[in-house]
Amino acid sequence: MDPDAVAKAFVEHYYTTFDANRAGLANLYQDGSMLTFEGQKIQGSQSIVAKLTSLPFQQCQHSITTVDCQPSGAGGMLVFVSGTLQLAGEQHALKFSQVIIFSLTSLFIS
Amino acid sequence: MDPDAVAKAFVEHYYTTFDANRAGLANLYQDGSMLTFEGQKIQGSQSIVAKLTSLPFQQCQHSITTVDCQPSGAGGMLVFVSGTLQLAGEQHALKFSQVIIFSLTSLFIS
Repeated sequence: MDPDAVAKAFVEHYYTTFDANRAGLANLYQDGSMLTFEGQKIQGSQSIVAKLTSLPFQQCQHSITTVDCQPSGAGGMLVFVSGTLQLAGEQHALKFSQVIIFSLTSLFIS
Repeated sequence: MDPDAVAKAFVEHYYTTFDANRAGLANLYQDGSMLTFEGQKIQGSQSIVAKLTSLPFQQCQHSITTVDCQPSGAGGMLVFVSGTLQLAGEQHALKFSQVIIFSLTSLFIS
C-alpha cells in the first residue's frame, strides 16, 4: 500500500478520534512516545492523553488543510499537518499545525 | 551539551546560510536526505539545493518565531520551526513553517 495514503488515513483517524473521543488517543501512543505541546515536552501515552484531555475546551472540530509526509528512519513516517480548529461557541477557527512521526508497521506514534 | 541548544543553533545556522548563501546549504544535506517542499519530494543534497536555489526570489530574510524540538530515533533531533520570510521589495512578510530532522552526532539533515 502507498505509504502516503497510509499516512493520510492515520492523520484522519487521529483527528477524528481527537474530536469524538479524546481519551481514545491513548491507543495511538506508546510509553516511549513524546509530545511537544507549545514548548512543553510530555512523555508516555498516559501523560500525553492527560495533557490533551485537560486542554481548556471540550467540543472541537479539526479540519485538515495540508498533509505532507516523507519516510523517516526504519519503517517510520514523518507527517506535517496544517489546518483549522473550530471550538464550540467561538466565531473564528484557530489555525493549527502538528508534526507526527509514526511507525508504518505498528501504526503507533513515536 | 543540551540537545535543545544544539537544535536551536543548527536552525539559526540553517536560515543564516539560506539567506546569505543558499548554495551553501548543500553542506547540511546528504545524499540520503529528503526535502518535501509544498508536496514535492526531492532527494539528495544536490537536487535539494537545486530546488532551493531555483525558488522565484533572490534576497530574503528569515525571522524565527518558534523552535520546538524533541529527540527522534538514535541520535536524531526533530525540530519544528515557524517564522516569517521577508522578500526583497515586498511590503509584507510571508509566514513559513518547516520541519527538520537532523543527526546530533553528524549535524546533517536526514
